[in-house]
Amino acid sequence: MKNKFITVSAPATVANVACGFDAIGFAVNNPCDIVSVGLTNFPGIHIHPIGGAYGSLLSTKAEINTAGVAIQSFLNKTKYKGGVEVNLTKNLPLGSGMGSSAASAAAAVYAINLLFDNLFTAEDLIPFAMEAERIACGTAHADNVAPALLGGFVLIRGYNPLDVVQIPFPENLYCTIVHPHIELRTEDSRKVLPKEISLKNGVTQWSNFAGLISGLTTKNYELIGRSLQDVIVEPVRATLIPGFNEVKQSAINSGVLGCSISGSGPSVFALSTDESIANRAAIAMQQAFANYRLKTDAYLSPININKPQIISNN
Amino acid sequence: MKNKFITVSAPATVANVACGFDAIGFAVNNPCDIVSVGLTNFPGIHIHPIGGAYGSLLSTKAEINTAGVAIQSFLNKTKYKGGVEVNLTKNLPLGSGMGSSAASAAAAVYAINLLFDNLFTAEDLIPFAMEAERIACGTAHADNVAPALLGGFVLIRGYNPLDVVQIPFPENLYCTIVHPHIELRTEDSRKVLPKEISLKNGVTQWSNFAGLISGLTTKNYELIGRSLQDVIVEPVRATLIPGFNEVKQSAINSGVLGCSISGSGPSVFALSTDESIANRAAIAMQQAFANYRLKTDAYLSPININKPQIISNN
Repeated sequence: MKNKFITVSAPATVANVACGFDAIGFAVNNPCDIVSVGLTNFPGIHIHPIGGAYGSLLSTKAEINTAGVAIQSFLNKTKYKGGVEVNLTKNLPLGSGMGSSAASAAAAVYAINLLFDNLFTAEDLIPFAMEAERIACGTAHADNVAPALLGGFVLIRGYNPLDVVQIPFPENLYCTIVHPHIELRTEDSRKVLPKEISLKNGVTQWSNFAGLISGLTTKNYELIGRSLQDVIVEPVRATLIPGFNEVKQSAINSGVLGCSISGSGPSVFALSTDESIANRAAIAMQQAFANYRLKTDAYLSPININKPQIISNN
Repeated sequence: MKNKFITVSAPATVANVACGFDAIGFAVNNPCDIVSVGLTNFPGIHIHPIGGAYGSLLSTKAEINTAGVAIQSFLNKTKYKGGVEVNLTKNLPLGSGMGSSAASAAAAVYAINLLFDNLFTAEDLIPFAMEAERIACGTAHADNVAPALLGGFVLIRGYNPLDVVQIPFPENLYCTIVHPHIELRTEDSRKVLPKEISLKNGVTQWSNFAGLISGLTTKNYELIGRSLQDVIVEPVRATLIPGFNEVKQSAINSGVLGCSISGSGPSVFALSTDESIANRAAIAMQQAFANYRLKTDAYLSPININKPQIISNN
């Protein structure tokens, strides 16, 4: 009998969103990682050679592959003694700040949970995917995996216990992500972070973050735009991204609501109220990076409301 | 001919609201300061002997009285050459953390604006009242005057330019304020503030503040409760308030959503979903202060939705 395979895609995510460092992220529609999972009689997690543009860069060893780690973390909560077979198509660039490790982990746990007849809710899956983040970047953070699993904007209010809050957002919100072809490891981009910040900058940051939450929830685009400011992390991380200031200025000149670093970078995101503005911004941002002799990919998408998608189930 | 007098009351306010230091405040219904303002032919601002429980503690010199300063700041934006007569009933205790200076300033500018046929919107009046705060406590902060003038919860997203955001909130939200009879000058309670905070504590603070804004806006009481935590300011200011930890614990034991220091203290506020819980908390909090031999006043109120109230207009 042919084993049952379930294939799921999970999306790229933008963490931090300018003013919400380590506390919020949102999902977009593309790019997505695709993971197929099947149950087998042979114990252990077997990951097949990995496809997709970036697959050759990843290990197929389950204990250091984010899909493998997430699945193992899931299985640890079951009494299942059999094995798991995994096919992974890696479309998200690594070290890009687009939640690459989170997308594979989210797709993997979403798929295996379906094979277990939805043993867990999507929210319950977050901790399993967080374990993959621990392997990928040293901390089990949730600001990529939570939006990858739940869609939309997700606030991580706290970790003890994990408290994730889905933030309503207006319909017409488009995201531009431009990924320059340099790799920035999350670990490295965390090293430049200050350990201490001034209370004054803290007040500015949480005032803006509160404004962002209010603007999203009440569909106030101007407020969203005014709030997309980061006085703490962007100034130090911008130094790791050649041309960042020019890229940001080009986005703002294109009419976006705001622009900042996606996650730990080097990708840069912008939010717009209109697809044509988002497109114009993509072109301008790519040109600004090109002036620094950097090749780029641009991704355009509304905010993801679909969560992970089942691609096939047979 | 008798001069026209307008009499306005403006309410006490709770700034900071646990996690939103220097960024948010809300108004309650009582206590209120009452200000009567009339126009006269004699130049200058004349403040009559001040009534109310705390009137004798205030100066009638316009340039150091918050009502006087706010009115002068208002008049500076007009071409008015005449004088102003002011009667003030001071019901809010001074140095209490309940926005005492803000209430007098807000009532004063609201009243004189009515005499000038609403020359300005309520929001436009905020900067005039902020000037009074500068005199009263050294900084022209808006987190008391803005809710005193607009009612409800008001976020101060930024000061350059001033950006105030009214935050929707659920109907059933009751505030208990217990004021122990010790005076804490805003200036002194600012001295204990750290100049620097850890980035980690910053993340915790803005995650909670985002949770509070989301909880208020989406009427999620549990989220409001979980978010009412302050890891930065409360720990240092609590040392200035005898019995604070016991008072807070007694409020929490009474079933409130959360409890923290009102503004710069020493008053302590709690939010509840029910008037009877708010009342039970008041009794418990007063008893806890009494155990430290402190006399107290307790104030119970829903969140103020009335803004300043016109008491008489003749």
